[in-house]
Parts: sequence; structure tokens; C-alpha cells
Amino acid sequence: MAVNKRPVKITDTILRDAHQSLIATRMKTEDMLPIVEKLDKVGYHSVECWGGATFDACLRFLKEDPWERLRKLRDGFKNTKLQMLLRGQNILGYRHYADDVVEYFVQKTIANGIDILRIFDALNDPRNLKTAIDATKKEGGHAQIAISYTLSEVHTLEYYAKLAKQLEDMGADSICIKDMAGLLVPYSATELVKTLKETVKVPIQLHAHYTSGVAAMTYLKAVEAGADIIDTAMSPFSMGTAQPATEVMVETFKGTPYDTGFDQDLLSEIADYFRPQREKALESGLMNPKVLGVNIKTLLYQVPGGMLSNLVSQLQKQNAEDKFYDVLEEIPRVRADYGYPPLVTPSSQIVGTQAVLNVLSGQRYKMVTKESKALVRGEYGRTPVPISDEIKKIIIGNEKQITCRPADLIKPELKKIESEMTRYKQQDEDVLSYALFSQVAEDFFKYREAQQTKVDPNMADKDNKVYPV
Amino acid sequence: MAVNKRPVKITDTILRDAHQSLIATRMKTEDMLPIVEKLDKVGYHSVECWGGATFDACLRFLKEDPWERLRKLRDGFKNTKLQMLLRGQNILGYRHYADDVVEYFVQKTIANGIDILRIFDALNDPRNLKTAIDATKKEGGHAQIAISYTLSEVHTLEYYAKLAKQLEDMGADSICIKDMAGLLVPYSATELVKTLKETVKVPIQLHAHYTSGVAAMTYLKAVEAGADIIDTAMSPFSMGTAQPATEVMVETFKGTPYDTGFDQDLLSEIADYFRPQREKALESGLMNPKVLGVNIKTLLYQVPGGMLSNLVSQLQKQNAEDKFYDVLEEIPRVRADYGYPPLVTPSSQIVGTQAVLNVLSGQRYKMVTKESKALVRGEYGRTPVPISDEIKKIIIGNEKQITCRPADLIKPELKKIESEMTRYKQQDEDVLSYALFSQVAEDFFKYREAQQTKVDPNMADKDNKVYPV
Ligand SMILES: [Co+2]
Ligand SMILES: [Co+2]
Repeated sequence: MAVNKRPVKITDTILRDAHQSLIATRMKTEDMLPIVEKLDKVGYHSVECWGGATFDACLRFLKEDPWERLRKLRDGFKNTKLQMLLRGQNILGYRHYADDVVEYFVQKTIANGIDILRIFDALNDPRNLKTAIDATKKEGGHAQIAISYTLSEVHTLEYYAKLAKQLEDMGADSICIKDMAGLLVPYSATELVKTLKETVKVPIQLHAHYTSGVAAMTYLKAVEAGADIIDTAMSPFSMGTAQPATEVMVETFKGTPYDTGFDQDLLSEIADYFRPQREKALESGLMNPKVLGVNIKTLLYQVPGGMLSNLVSQLQKQNAEDKFYDVLEEIPRVRADYGYPPLVTPSSQIVGTQAVLNVLSGQRYKMVTKESKALVRGEYGRTPVPISDEIKKIIIGNEKQITCRPADLIKPELKKIESEMTRYKQQDEDVLSYALFSQVAEDFFKYREAQQTKVDPNMADKDNKVYPV
Repeated sequence: MAVNKRPVKITDTILRDAHQSLIATRMKTEDMLPIVEKLDKVGYHSVECWGGATFDACLRFLKEDPWERLRKLRDGFKNTKLQMLLRGQNILGYRHYADDVVEYFVQKTIANGIDILRIFDALNDPRNLKTAIDATKKEGGHAQIAISYTLSEVHTLEYYAKLAKQLEDMGADSICIKDMAGLLVPYSATELVKTLKETVKVPIQLHAHYTSGVAAMTYLKAVEAGADIIDTAMSPFSMGTAQPATEVMVETFKGTPYDTGFDQDLLSEIADYFRPQREKALESGLMNPKVLGVNIKTLLYQVPGGMLSNLVSQLQKQNAEDKFYDVLEEIPRVRADYGYPPLVTPSSQIVGTQAVLNVLSGQRYKMVTKESKALVRGEYGRTPVPISDEIKKIIIGNEKQITCRPADLIKPELKKIESEMTRYKQQDEDVLSYALFSQVAEDFFKYREAQQTKVDPNMADKDNKVYPV
């Protein structure tokens, strides 16, 4: 091919999203460190290794300090940029935090070794991203803004172009199309990537999950259309609900203008390292073969796989499985009523549960969840399109909608949080662990103390992962 | 896209290659029949449902008459063409048969309901295909000739173009690129398909396995380059060592010039039917999750996955695992010496074993297997390029090479075969079952008789699948 060379760059998710997607985020730091030296030699654009659910999983299940993990990884990766996933104003938790917590978190994250922060918001409300972007840039980090990809009549190419331009204007150093549900089909990727490349100057990265079976093809078409970076995972933790395999994409582009130039022998050694972990996880049941299959339903109903299985179990509890298709038809209607939020956490649960209630109660919005009210009240941020006065009236009556950025209503809270946990504090970063997951962090702090003081280690209830001090 | 419509056609392998690849060909006729009516409504170009290993598996493991299966399927498929895989002069066995057996097999195959015979030869020797092609055309069947795809310095685009032209001239109604090892990478598919489309007029079909992780992308590029038909498998038995998923490819091409027009709701019902069979196979261990992963090594060493695992076990038996990479380097040298045969059964085993011997004995061709001698002697047919006099001398000394078609040396054998099994014959087709798998067929005939006469059914040793008469 006589085309100019345009090597595609690769972010490997093996240390974050790959194991989060396939083995419930259970990869330990000790499972990572022995292979870091080789990973560092590949030539990756970056290695995603922190954030997402790893922070919670470290504290809750692995009894590890996530900050300590980050420092160890930073220590090992001499040449490769480290990347993380940050949920905007939610940081890594499930509520909006005050700006002082977000700023402090970003500061410590970069100080401990993260180079690239991928920042996203479930509603794609730029205001929920602003504090994190500004903090990242202030600390000298790379602010990558991720657009939560979804399908609806308002999520047109024009919508995405306008949003991308706005994010670039806000200071995004790169933009990521984040397709958490595997909804972006190959030829739609061609159009979307072309549109974004025509609209913004910053690099475009694509993050997709293999769940619906199209992700590798989607990457191929996206790269042909001009995507600069793709997210892949080393083959033993690839595909299924995770990313396309690194070695496969590298081989696919070999000898083409998009050739990564990576050394397959080196990748092969890395895969050999991780393969026993996959086999062990399959044997123990930690990896369920079901996550390795194709779930095409997500494409047919334009609804993420996790949301579909939630619906089934909600309906089963009510002995109303026969209403499954009625609920599936109700979902896009509720979504339209609610201003077309992308179907990701938490809006996927809110829309799904409300659709179930609307069908089972026999009258739409006869019963309304408090989360529905919060969404309509604007507490999660601004929905892609405004919610009609009619729906507002039905859901929240005469209550006022929040029109400001939700975090504007949250007073600085860092000092108060710190004051609650001083007793356990061994490093500044502990304040942030406690801010995000107070109970879990406290349990971890107690466990850490017990380990350090060797108090009654035999009393540890290992099955329940509860450790007395 | 303002391109002329060119819907891609689909052959579904769910009833043959899919379960042959993922669950050792163990799908029973009774597992197929309830879904035939729906499969028949999809609009497939064809359904592959017979041949390959299914014939042997029916008789050996399932205690089913393969001919009876074919008649039942034919009875159910009112609108869809039925397709099978035939190993040229080997029919469905592992030796060359006399022409009278090949002709009779093809006649009975078409009489019992097969429309399309995909005929291939491991060495791509057209002479090994000729009798089957002629018989197919004489009986009014569609003769699809499959080219065994392989990589080597002689397997150039020119080689494939020349071969395809020759096959078209021999009467091929369509040509299939048969990539059993997942070696055809996406951008090579572009070039290969373009070349073939420029060379021949008959439709081009692509058959690939997902083993190395590229197959869906390879299909996409092949279809863009002009491929007419692709082989896919319904999602519950797709990917891994089987084909890309039908629903995924259908969805990928939806709304493009290649749109299949298939009804995803119907496909979804079919997938729902097969999904419990997948889950059961995973639970029982019949489906090993290992077959679902990506094996990139097949691409790196240009050697099929099965051949690699055979090598490892051969070396383990000799306590010589440290010689693995030496053997991998020896393989292409042996292959060059032997005239570059494609690495499929039986040449993959012949080349692999000889490479092991060459490395372990410390001297090339110090020890030579009888299969090596047979290959060099020309008993399997003509290799892609002639074998040098030097190698002939080393391997077979002064023995003569066969230069004629191997089957020319086999006298008619049908009558003799029939005379051996008359005692069991209940239908003409039984002669063919016996011709291909004499011992297994005899055991089956005895079992069938026992079932019919109800002699001592309680003595059946069900665990060992051995049935006394
Ligand atoms: Co993800
Ligand atoms: Co096959």
C-alpha cells in the first residue's frame, strides 16, 4: 500500500480494564510486577493500570493499598506512560464530590505516577468534567476526555462533533470514544471517527469491549478512518467482555501503513506470563466462560449486556418474566422522557428500574423511584437534551430543577473527611481512600495496622476477608 | 454509502464445522431437528450440515446412521441448500479410494439431499479433486472447490490465481478459500480476494476459523474486496476454533451495500435454542474453555494450532521440550524440502514429525518416517512445487516417484467392499459407510441390529459406548 505511514498507537488495558471485565478486578499487584519490565519494552502509547474499579477492589477484596500499587508500577515502568480511568466529579466513587476532593485526588494521582487521566461522565455533561480537567492540566498531566458512546435519536454525528469540539475547547489533550457496551459497529465507527477527526485536532482514541463481537472490526474501520490510538488487552485477558487482543491487532496492521512496529516475540513472552493466570481463573471459577461468549442482544436492543441481565433478574423476582419484551420497548420511551441519557451506570439502572415499574404497575410513572427523581431534578448533571416540562411535572411535581453544576452545591469537604480518619492516617493519600470508600477504607486501615503490629493475626477470618485488630 | 448493493451471502456451519471445532463433532441429530424449520427461514445461501468429521462421529460416538441424519435434515430444509465438506479422493476417510467408490459416494450424497459439495485436497493437487468434481456435476450437484490456504514463499498471489483458474476450468461452480488454521490476515484477504475476483468468474467463498483472532476482520476485508459468500456459525458455537458469529457479521453489514437482509429476531430465537447446548457442553467439559481463547502463535509461526500442540507433546515424551524453538525453525526447512505442502492433515503431521526427528537425532533425515517416504514418493499427490532430486535421493534412495494421479493406481474396489459387508447391509448407503470406516461401521451395524431386534439391550455398556449384540 503506497500510503503514508501512520502507525496506530496502542494502550494496553491488561492491568486495569481487562481483568476488571473478565475476573472481577481481582488481579493482584504481585501478579503484575514480574512482567512490568517486559511490558515496559513493548512501545505502548500507554498502559492502563489504575482507576476504574481497581481502587475499590484493592481495598475491599485484595487488602492492598491502591496508592502503593501505583507507586510500585511507576517504579517499574521507566519508559511507558501510565494511564487511569476517572469518573469525573465522581472520582472513583458513586456520588459527586466537592471540588477540593477532586483536585486533591488528581494532584496525588499525578504525584504518585499517573501520566494520562481518562476522564468521563455518565451523562457527558462537560461541567462534571471541568474540575478534573483543570486539576489535571494544573498538575502537568494529560487530560484525555472520554465520550460515553451511546445510541439514540439525539446521539447523531452532529451531537458527537459538537461535544468533541466543546471538550477540546475545555482543554482536552485527547478525546476517547468510550464504547463500554460494544454498541459501536464497524461502519458506524468509520463515520464517527471521520467526523471527529474533521472536527478536532487532538488525537482520537477508541475504547471498546468485545461483548457484542464487533470490537476488532470496529477498531479496524476506526483506524482506517483516522483513529490514532486503540485500547487492546494482552490475549489471555482479551475479548469476551474485555478488549480485542493486543497481538491480534498488532498482527493485523503489520506491513500496512498502520504497522505498530511491536515485537511479537516479546508480546508472546508477555502472553505466556499471563496465560497461567487465565487458566487458574477458569479453574477456580473466577473467570466464567460465559463472559467469553458473544452477546449480540446488546446490539439488537441497544442496551448494555449488564442492564439486560439486571432486567431479567428484576422481572424474575416479580414472577413477571413474560413482561421482558414489554420492558424492552418501554426502555427507549423512558430514556426519551429523561432526556436520552447514555445507558451507563447510574442512568442504566435508573432507566431500567423505572421501565420495569412502568410496565408492572400498569400505568407509566404511577410509581417513581427516588433515583428517577434525582435524575429529573438534575442532580446527576445535564441530560443530553432538556427534559420536558410535562415529564418534570409528573416526576418531581413542583420541585425545582437544578440548573447549575451539581458540584456547585457541595461545600468543600476534604477537611471534614480528614478529621474523621486521622486515627488511621499513615500517608496523605489515605484521606482520599477514606473519602471515596469510607467503610471499606477503614476496614483496610485496620487490617494494615494489624499486619504491622502483628496483633492477633490468627484471628483473621480469611473466608470472610474480615480482619480483627 | 452510495455504492451498488451487493448483499453478502452466508453459509452457516452450525450443523457441521461449528460443533466439529468446539465440541468434537458431538451434536446429535435430535439436537438439530427442532430448529431446522427456523434455520430454513433465515435466507442462508446454504447450511453446512454434513461431511467433514460428522460421518465418522455419527457412526463411532453417536451411534447414528449419517445417511439417516442427512435424509432427516433434507426433509426439514425445504428452501435452503444443504452443503457438505468432502476430502476429494479421500472422501471422508484418510486414504485415497478408487474412483468407483468416490463416484458412488457422490451419487448417494446428492441422492440423499446434499446440494453443494465443498471438495478439497490437502496438497491442492487438482488431480485428487477431478473424480469428485466430475461425479458432482454428473449428478447435478454444485461443485465448490476449496483451496487449502497456507503461507510459504511459493504460495504467492500468482500461485493462488493460477490454481483458481485451473479449478474453474475443471468445472468448479464456485471457489472457496479454506483457511483452516486462521492464517489469512485481513489485509492479505483484501489482496487474495481481489486477485481471485480478477481471475475467475465463479463466486468466491471464504471459510476461516477464529483461532488466531482475525477471522471476523478478515471476512470484513474480504467482503469489501468482493468475496461473495462467507462461512459463519450461530453465536453459541462461534469464534474460538470455530467460525465468526453469524449475528455479528449480519449486524456488521446491516445498512451497508453488503446487507444480508436477515432478520435478527429470527437469528436471536435460533441462538436461544443453541445456547443451552453450549452451556451444557461447558458444564460437562465437552467444550473446553481453552478452545474459546485466542491462539496467536499460529500466526507467528505460520503453523496450525493443532500442529503446535502435537509438537509440544512429542517433545515432552522425549524430555526435549527445550528443543521446541529448534523444531519450529526446522519446520519451514522440511517443508521447503518436501515441496511446500500446505500444513494440514496429513502433511502437517508428516512435516512436524520429520522436523522433530531431524532435530532430536542431531542429523537431518538420519531417521525418516514411512509417511515422509510416501509423501516424497508422490503417494499423496503432487506437491505445490517439485521435490528436488537431492531430497528424493536422501528420502527414498533409488525408488521411483509416482508421477500419475495416485488413485490411478487403485483398482475398482466397490464390489469387493460390498462383498465383505453384505451380512449387515440394510440400504445401499451402508456399503459406503463400511468403505470409509470398516470397523466402526461394522460395530454400528451390529448395534443397529441389536436395537432392531431388541437383543440383550440391558447388556449395553453405555459408558464405553460399546453395545453387545
Ligand atoms: Co472499559
Ligand atoms: Co473448517
